[in-house]
Amino acid sequence: MDGPIEDENCRRILRAIEIIGVRWIGPILLAGARGARRFTEYRRLVPGISDPQLTLRLKQLQAHGLIERTVIPSTPVQIRYALTPGAEELISALRPLSDWSEHHAR
Amino acid sequence: MDGPIEDENCRRILRAIEIIGVRWIGPILLAGARGARRFTEYRRLVPGISDPQLTLRLKQLQAHGLIERTVIPSTPVQIRYALTPGAEELISALRPLSDWSEHHAR
Repeated sequence: MDGPIEDENCRRILRAIEIIGVRWIGPILLAGARGARRFTEYRRLVPGISDPQLTLRLKQLQAHGLIERTVIPSTPVQIRYALTPGAEELISALRPLSDWSEHHAR
Repeated sequence: MDGPIEDENCRRILRAIEIIGVRWIGPILLAGARGARRFTEYRRLVPGISDPQLTLRLKQLQAHGLIERTVIPSTPVQIRYALTPGAEELISALRPLSDWSEHHAR
């Protein structure tokens, strides 16, 4: 460690867990990291999710600043959902935890 | 990122979250990182926890391989609870997530 972990770190970690620990959030971010942009692409990459669930989670991810919704003014209108830089950084920040889990979680 | 995040990473991250997302676990690990060894030292560093709750969490942390319990054969017997190397690595692995949360979580 670079220094002692403080109570404030604990709170920060729990705030992040409150976001990523919610059902479907991890797989949706993963789908975005794999290049999903359209609603139907997310649905295909997140097996088992229903349309209303995916709609809700995409809205929540926008509220967290992790997904950016873009409207392309074509006919018909097209919607794209892309990971924000903050979401890409979150995925990077989770990698050490994934590595730890691989070797230690039981 | 060093590479695409995979489903297996997702599962690993969720396994880690299942451990650290449980109530009191973060503050107890934090207490151990701050040098707590005796039951009473943990209790003092984790405000609001009851003795039965602390007993249960220490047992769970032992089952996860994150706390090592040592019996010192003095009179009376003394018990020490120390973080394992795996727990120290977990705390290090959580630091990027804490940093991310500081700048992005909302």
